[in-house]
Amino acid sequence: MPKVGIVMGSDSDLKVMSGAAAMLKELGIDYEMRIISAHREPDLLIEWTRSAKERGLKVIIAGAGMAAALPGMCAALFSLPVIGVPLSGKKLDGMDAVFSIMQMPPGVPVATVAIDGAKNAAILAAKMLATGDDELLARLEAYTENLKEQVEAKDQKLQQIGYENYLNQ
Amino acid sequence: MPKVGIVMGSDSDLKVMSGAAAMLKELGIDYEMRIISAHREPDLLIEWTRSAKERGLKVIIAGAGMAAALPGMCAALFSLPVIGVPLSGKKLDGMDAVFSIMQMPPGVPVATVAIDGAKNAAILAAKMLATGDDELLARLEAYTENLKEQVEAKDQKLQQIGYENYLNQ
Amino acid sequence: MPKVGIVMGSDSDLKVMSGAAAMLKELGIDYEMRIISAHREPDLLIEWTRSAKERGLKVIIAGAGMAAALPGMCAALFSLPVIGVPLSGKKLDGMDAVFSIMQMPPGVPVATVAIDGAKNAAILAAKMLATGDDELLARLEAYTENLKEQVEAKDQKLQQIGYENYLNQ
Amino acid sequence: MPKVGIVMGSDSDLKVMSGAAAMLKELGIDYEMRIISAHREPDLLIEWTRSAKERGLKVIIAGAGMAAALPGMCAALFSLPVIGVPLSGKKLDGMDAVFSIMQMPPGVPVATVAIDGAKNAAILAAKMLATGDDELLARLEAYTENLKEQVEAKDQKLQQIGYENYLNQ
Amino acid sequence: MPKVGIVMGSDSDLKVMSGAAAMLKELGIDYEMRIISAHREPDLLIEWTRSAKERGLKVIIAGAGMAAALPGMCAALFSLPVIGVPLSGKKLDGMDAVFSIMQMPPGVPVATVAIDGAKNAAILAAKMLATGDDELLARLEAYTENLKEQVEAKDQKLQQIGYENYLNQ
Amino acid sequence: MPKVGIVMGSDSDLKVMSGAAAMLKELGIDYEMRIISAHREPDLLIEWTRSAKERGLKVIIAGAGMAAALPGMCAALFSLPVIGVPLSGKKLDGMDAVFSIMQMPPGVPVATVAIDGAKNAAILAAKMLATGDDELLARLEAYTENLKEQVEAKDQKLQQIGYENYLNQ
Amino acid sequence: MPKVGIVMGSDSDLKVMSGAAAMLKELGIDYEMRIISAHREPDLLIEWTRSAKERGLKVIIAGAGMAAALPGMCAALFSLPVIGVPLSGKKLDGMDAVFSIMQMPPGVPVATVAIDGAKNAAILAAKMLATGDDELLARLEAYTENLKEQVEAKDQKLQQIGYENYLNQ
Amino acid sequence: MPKVGIVMGSDSDLKVMSGAAAMLKELGIDYEMRIISAHREPDLLIEWTRSAKERGLKVIIAGAGMAAALPGMCAALFSLPVIGVPLSGKKLDGMDAVFSIMQMPPGVPVATVAIDGAKNAAILAAKMLATGDDELLARLEAYTENLKEQVEAKDQKLQQIGYENYLNQ
Repeated sequence: MPKVGIVMGSDSDLKVMSGAAAMLKELGIDYEMRIISAHREPDLLIEWTRSAKERGLKVIIAGAGMAAALPGMCAALFSLPVIGVPLSGKKLDGMDAVFSIMQMPPGVPVATVAIDGAKNAAILAAKMLATGDDELLARLEAYTENLKEQVEAKDQKLQQIGYENYLNQ
Repeated sequence: MPKVGIVMGSDSDLKVMSGAAAMLKELGIDYEMRIISAHREPDLLIEWTRSAKERGLKVIIAGAGMAAALPGMCAALFSLPVIGVPLSGKKLDGMDAVFSIMQMPPGVPVATVAIDGAKNAAILAAKMLATGDDELLARLEAYTENLKEQVEAKDQKLQQIGYENYLNQ
Repeated sequence: MPKVGIVMGSDSDLKVMSGAAAMLKELGIDYEMRIISAHREPDLLIEWTRSAKERGLKVIIAGAGMAAALPGMCAALFSLPVIGVPLSGKKLDGMDAVFSIMQMPPGVPVATVAIDGAKNAAILAAKMLATGDDELLARLEAYTENLKEQVEAKDQKLQQIGYENYLNQ
Repeated sequence: MPKVGIVMGSDSDLKVMSGAAAMLKELGIDYEMRIISAHREPDLLIEWTRSAKERGLKVIIAGAGMAAALPGMCAALFSLPVIGVPLSGKKLDGMDAVFSIMQMPPGVPVATVAIDGAKNAAILAAKMLATGDDELLARLEAYTENLKEQVEAKDQKLQQIGYENYLNQ
Repeated sequence: MPKVGIVMGSDSDLKVMSGAAAMLKELGIDYEMRIISAHREPDLLIEWTRSAKERGLKVIIAGAGMAAALPGMCAALFSLPVIGVPLSGKKLDGMDAVFSIMQMPPGVPVATVAIDGAKNAAILAAKMLATGDDELLARLEAYTENLKEQVEAKDQKLQQIGYENYLNQ
Repeated sequence: MPKVGIVMGSDSDLKVMSGAAAMLKELGIDYEMRIISAHREPDLLIEWTRSAKERGLKVIIAGAGMAAALPGMCAALFSLPVIGVPLSGKKLDGMDAVFSIMQMPPGVPVATVAIDGAKNAAILAAKMLATGDDELLARLEAYTENLKEQVEAKDQKLQQIGYENYLNQ
Repeated sequence: MPKVGIVMGSDSDLKVMSGAAAMLKELGIDYEMRIISAHREPDLLIEWTRSAKERGLKVIIAGAGMAAALPGMCAALFSLPVIGVPLSGKKLDGMDAVFSIMQMPPGVPVATVAIDGAKNAAILAAKMLATGDDELLARLEAYTENLKEQVEAKDQKLQQIGYENYLNQ
Repeated sequence: MPKVGIVMGSDSDLKVMSGAAAMLKELGIDYEMRIISAHREPDLLIEWTRSAKERGLKVIIAGAGMAAALPGMCAALFSLPVIGVPLSGKKLDGMDAVFSIMQMPPGVPVATVAIDGAKNAAILAAKMLATGDDELLARLEAYTENLKEQVEAKDQKLQQIGYENYLNQ
């Protein structure tokens, strides 16, 4: 039974949003992933979002670009947390989506992550689930520890071979 | 039977949006005006927008600020034109609403007017209705002619009394 | 007899603006398409815009980039609706054109669509014409229905083959 | 035992951030609220954040303006969710804080809400806690229902007394 | 016979634009000042601009806010220099006007000055006229010398009385 | 004897700024073109600018990118008109240069043209010189007439071959 | 003998820039403070900046708004560090000055601080001087310690009296 | 014993930041260069920064992109000057990093240089060290002199071969 729903408005968003799916999988969290457009399929969006809790979803990750209504409409229809991923498109570097997702009115928050930050959305969803799941929390802390070790290894390599070799490798 | 629907998400939008109502009245166009929030009352919004055509509405004017989903959701649910008015709030001078309203995806356009441009939204709605209504077109042209005469009168006054007197009057 | 005029200031705008022509054709709406520069051919622009109504035009779609005066000047000279398409150029992602087109003064609205949104401009023009044309309205609704089905089909494919296969296809 | 920590870098942030405390109280959620500056008291911040889980905190709400490092540093030191509130200051309408809070690197997400959106941060924290607390979920849904009724009441009043009276009341 | 034309689209621009008139007077340059709206009185604008050279005008100063078409249309219709003054309005700090005035297409330049820089527009017009008028050039150089002396006097005062007294005077 | 000086701060600006030289040549105006950096060669800049009038220069065109001090410093040192060309670099699309050039303080105007608008800077310089040179004015008007004819020819071609052929040619 | 020079282009900058003077005094650092305009008094600026080292100046703090050439020109003429303070004016929240000061070309850096950050400029100057002055370093560390204690005291008060009393005091 | 520390949060920053190392080497200044992430390795950052003075560091150059906390956290932990280099990433042209680095609160300044300005950061660090090192000052002045000569040589070449040959070489 999936705990996280990933939704996006177009298959052109899949390349970025699949990063959320991969990250959830790495953290051992079941998810469902759907392409549903707020502006083209409002009825389906309502049906999917309203029934999400019954299907076991605890968090929804919604990615959208331009006039990104999807995350906010999910937040209007789902009582549990919605994470919004502003997607950059051909123009404006995603700032249109940032404003459309982040600037929600009082009462209906969306947890906005960085532009194209689908991977971070998955980690944030995991952190939310970890508020009641100590095993997941341990996996998250191991993931964080691993990130730290990766940076340490890169720094050690830099100290050993110098920046010219590092850049030329 | 109203021909234009004016909708806004909060009564804090009324001060600006009432300018659309006043302009429609001046042009002799019946309207209905509602406060319906896309993020707080999605069901009511769907019901109101889906039934709009049956109630006789030909155009919807939707005003919203911040992550302004209202105009786009109206456009998703209404087959005839939707005009969006980006409202400036306390911060960002309305640019958040501009992006949320104007940057609609292919297939679902919103006719965006200037920031806080409720009056112009009403004139644009009238122009749309005038594509099939020669009397309304004549009233619009008279209105435009009157605007021109107002500027002419101001210019004549400036020529007569000079800018110092004009500014001190 | 054409019902929609498409006008742009330069043939460098044709690649984007031809999207409006293609969409109008798909919806069965006759149009005329012209290259007329507001800043280089003001007399011709006035002549073309002033006589537009007599030629049967109900809506004008004007696309322009940079200091995009064309849509606003059309709106000054044409009593029926003008739709403005802000075109992105080499710099500024089209924001210069957005401001030049959207921020019209009271009395002279331009219906602004998304940056490079020529296709949506055509759909918006069709929605305007459909306020008095039930057959066109039916074609628009069929078009919208088709859009919905396309997204549904993509979602079904994603469910069937998974995101890795979807991205690699 | 508090479940949510509210932290801000300066007492000049208290006017906005107290909105989070009031909202948490309304939803029946215990919290602790601290003034700790990331740039002036890095040791205290580390101590407070690292020990937060032991004190029972499940979520941290961090509000900051300008080069707002506080939310991101909390996220670096706390394994559970951190919500960032970008605060507007005297200049830039809070856009400096938006970028400093939202644009977190992979692995260390901050859940960013609207500019000055402290109240929404509290609701988002409640939604996170509600993933494992059905009673809180019920209170959240009642709160949302109440918001809806407030908008309905305003709309009914508008229908009854008209916009002129509404604006003059 | 006036040598400089000052034109603006609305009497709400007069407070700023009168600064150009005052500066021209101070430099001993005759001018005419008109309120003509590009979007409301296109015919009058064309007539006034096309006949400007015959009336003796060598330079036009055009001030406008929002979608500021006036300076560009003057440049389209007048073979001699046009100076554009972007006017700040209620929103956007005049950036809409900056883009509408500055971003002119090849072949039709507008000499853009600072936001609300009407006084500088007059000085720039004087510099243009001074390319063929040595007496005016001498007056301009005296004006510049005087500016320098004013700053020197302020600096001397600061040295004498200190910054606390300077600020409290 | 050159009448226009073209100056830029780096040879990386030459590709764009040579457009000004080519345009001046086309209009039959003698110029000198120099690479002088305000920040690296302040003494040389002062010497070149202060002696410009004696060498016959009537107008200076200064192109610069980033923190573009060159046009403003020329305006501080030259009593006749200075035209500034904001150059786009690798980042920010030239907006840094726009602000550095356009936002001059009272008394020291720079005539700012479009981003990378070197060609228009040359035409603006020619318009300035044409305030006292009827032959040049005639050449400018012929140039403008030619621009108009080019657009007309493109439009005729579009009418003849249609947009698909036009785009494929 | 002063070690730090504070320079600004206009006495309208004095209210903000005097914060630098007050801070230097608090840290026991001698300074001189001048009003010199880069655009109105280029010769005086060159003279003052070129002779700064001989007068004992080790650091220059230059504050300017709009097209802020002053800090960059100081950096062009002074071999030791120049700190730039972007000043906000009536429009654009100081972003014009930020770009004009921060975006210096290779070879000529300006150390840019926050918008209106004159106090921080003084602290930064002190940190620079402290690279060779252990007593000053001790004073700086005491100042930093004091800042920390102020925040601690505010936090303790908040814990004692609660946020409502804190805000109402 | 190194006098300057160069620190960055990721090896993806190395390509730009190595420009600082190369410049310091050219000026004969010893440095150490580390990859330490503020958000992934807060403890290591604190340890490295707190012990920097003991290792002989007089200046820290910190480069970071996006929500760039690294320079500010260094400034919180190091009493001597910190120079921040805002790094442009895939989106926003580095403006997110500019705000995160430049907009520091009172008491904790960061000396911000241009976007991707690592080379200038090194020169600024050298200028700081030169406040107490006349030999270094002489090397800096020689470097500046050399920059000037390079521009002069380019200008002479332009005068000799003309711009067409210059561009084609």
